Amino acid sequence: MAASVYQATVSAPVNIAVIKYWGKRNTELILPTNDSLSVTLDQDHLMSKTTSRADPSFQGDRLWLNGEEELIKKGGRLERCITEIRAMRKQLEDQDSSLPNLSTWGLRICSENNFPTAAGLASSASGFAALTFSLSTLFALEPAFTRSQLTRIARQGSGSACRSLMGGFVAWQSGSAEDGSDSLALEVAPREHWPELQALICVVSDAKKGTPSTAGMQRTVATSPLLQERIRSVVPKRMEDISAAIQARDFDKFAEITMADSNNFHATCLDTQPPIFYMNDTSRNIIQLVEEINRASLEAGGKRIIAYTYDAGPNAVLYHDKQHSELIIQTIRHYFPNADFDDTFNILGAGISASHRGPQGPVALPASLPKAFNGAIIPVHEPGAVGRLLHTQVGDGPRVIEHRDNGMTGLLDEQGEPIRLMRTKKE
Amino acid sequence: MAASVYQATVSAPVNIAVIKYWGKRNTELILPTNDSLSVTLDQDHLMSKTTSRADPSFQGDRLWLNGEEELIKKGGRLERCITEIRAMRKQLEDQDSSLPNLSTWGLRICSENNFPTAAGLASSASGFAALTFSLSTLFALEPAFTRSQLTRIARQGSGSACRSLMGGFVAWQSGSAEDGSDSLALEVAPREHWPELQALICVVSDAKKGTPSTAGMQRTVATSPLLQERIRSVVPKRMEDISAAIQARDFDKFAEITMADSNNFHATCLDTQPPIFYMNDTSRNIIQLVEEINRASLEAGGKRIIAYTYDAGPNAVLYHDKQHSELIIQTIRHYFPNADFDDTFNILGAGISASHRGPQGPVALPASLPKAFNGAIIPVHEPGAVGRLLHTQVGDGPRVIEHRDNGMTGLLDEQGEPIRLMRTKKE
Repeated sequence: MAASVYQATVSAPVNIAVIKYWGKRNTELILPTNDSLSVTLDQDHLMSKTTSRADPSFQGDRLWLNGEEELIKKGGRLERCITEIRAMRKQLEDQDSSLPNLSTWGLRICSENNFPTAAGLASSASGFAALTFSLSTLFALEPAFTRSQLTRIARQGSGSACRSLMGGFVAWQSGSAEDGSDSLALEVAPREHWPELQALICVVSDAKKGTPSTAGMQRTVATSPLLQERIRSVVPKRMEDISAAIQARDFDKFAEITMADSNNFHATCLDTQPPIFYMNDTSRNIIQLVEEINRASLEAGGKRIIAYTYDAGPNAVLYHDKQHSELIIQTIRHYFPNADFDDTFNILGAGISASHRGPQGPVALPASLPKAFNGAIIPVHEPGAVGRLLHTQVGDGPRVIEHRDNGMTGLLDEQGEPIRLMRTKKE
Repeated sequence: MAASVYQATVSAPVNIAVIKYWGKRNTELILPTNDSLSVTLDQDHLMSKTTSRADPSFQGDRLWLNGEEELIKKGGRLERCITEIRAMRKQLEDQDSSLPNLSTWGLRICSENNFPTAAGLASSASGFAALTFSLSTLFALEPAFTRSQLTRIARQGSGSACRSLMGGFVAWQSGSAEDGSDSLALEVAPREHWPELQALICVVSDAKKGTPSTAGMQRTVATSPLLQERIRSVVPKRMEDISAAIQARDFDKFAEITMADSNNFHATCLDTQPPIFYMNDTSRNIIQLVEEINRASLEAGGKRIIAYTYDAGPNAVLYHDKQHSELIIQTIRHYFPNADFDDTFNILGAGISASHRGPQGPVALPASLPKAFNGAIIPVHEPGAVGRLLHTQVGDGPRVIEHRDNGMTGLLDEQGEPIRLMRTKKE
């Protein structure tokens, strides 16, 4: 029966913006008020996996997310993505009658994230990227349609999802067309261009839930006088400058712009009525620590060696070059004790297991810190202020795991039901 | 000997800006990058008191601040103020030979603040206003020189000091002249225009010292792209709108603009490289509480009844109308237990002494809160998160306490030495 199975299983990565997306010019089509640029993170560590199957026997479409069925609402984002991508398949079928009419069959879609919600990472970007890519693979849309054309679909599921359809360094152009046809993601540079770039994700404990970004960004559009300046002149200049810094692998410049744009974005949130706060005192302490590390490095005649960036939450993402990863991780572990730490790259050596958990006691400041570093810049925090550290690196784009085989490596069983149901609840 | 004593003792008030001053176009003359507007607070509660005496027997000038002698540095701000104001006296003496030549005599100046440093209020504004006004009184500069002309002197001691030379509602015009001759303070409305306006100062505990405002504001001028938009269009519009709101005694509008401008100012601090943080998590919780009180009031068909504003520190100043003072104070005391509280206006009634101190145990939320108020908006904090509450109101301008008498009510003894030495250390 293998021949009769039309299925694709793919994985898609998380991306973290260095020039932030905040504000929509069209909320229906998800067209942004400004360009943005992100780094794609390694799927070996963080990813969404999605299996899509088309079968003439399926009645309508069904979708499961982390083991729980999601209703595909009429006019909702899920339906919009599925409808648009079906239309693209239909075009191919109209041009080539030998193709099976997959566009007319029902779909079964099953998606899972490999990273814990505790990571505080928005899974919608990798999730909608995986959905889009699994369907485009199932429908064999490439190369007739380009990857950039596919980003238009992912964008309508979740804006930043369009940036997760490519690896390395990705720009999302706001575009100007009313229908959003020119609001696409483009690769600025592949992972291979700058493979030494790593990211340490610091999961910051926070009592209260922040304002949801979808609601928050439109409140900023409506009430912040400073956002207009950000859109008009701050971002366009920074898009140029950071693209050049990436081409030149100039970490110092990359770091300067990344930190400035994170602060500029959060400044427009504070300028919103009522104000929106995403960073808390722990987030701010990490900023002061990072600024002090760079200050000391610059004072010693060196350059910036670390950059922070914050999305719509208190978690820090710390970009750095591989050569400084031990210095940075041990410094963070000194000031923020007992964070769970996945030692992905075996930074800590054989002394500590590859996936170290729980209390570690005090960690000394690394001797490799610049001499001028002021150790009293922030206090050593209570254990758990940073609950978890995830160490990863720049990664590639979505991957095809299997295509039209018997589905053994997919997430759906023979009947097109999820192999793992209620996975999230079970674990 | 009374006749031979030339002395003036005055008091000058604190002022809290509702349109913030942040950035100098000339650091030497202290010329601001934008207009600002403040409310003068009641001297019965917070003030600086200064006695100035001129005597032909004095060798040079000497000055004491809170019982400690301050060196009057060559080219420093103290010297600049004294020199400029002497020059004004000299003009009068040149025009009227019957005047004693006070401008050629030595000076003894003694100044004290009546409010604790713990209040976290910048004393430089009231201090330089008191210095300027005591000398202008000693030299009998008014009415030959207008009060606005005197603000030019105070401004060169400490920018915002120019706003403490007038009562009620005071605008400081940035002006455009190179020499600063048109950068003056003007009265927008006297205290009597809106006597019901009160202020609750919440002194927020904070571990670390923030960036000094003098250094901080110039870093913002040098590095924040958003500050230029604030200077160019945000502030000019708000100066017009809040002046109109004050003329109309429209608290709702006054509150909306005051809160927006406080957030706009702190947004430019966050947009600075490296970023400047003045508010901490407690400050932000007070903001969320105030926004919720107003939201609930608006939802009930009412208007905004409270406004927060933050200067270069974590302390909140909460403006409100007298009629809502009990509601606001009891709500703050509920969420921030055990703050020292000077019950200036006997809000708490006979039940609690006029100057209540220390632990008070839990305080219930007032029944007068709008029905829609969400009591879970912020948690009840640890005792001491807000260490002190100061309740005051809009006040008048500087007052002459004594002039050319025998100095009994002044701060200097017969010899021109401070009556209280090292006052701060003794208490």
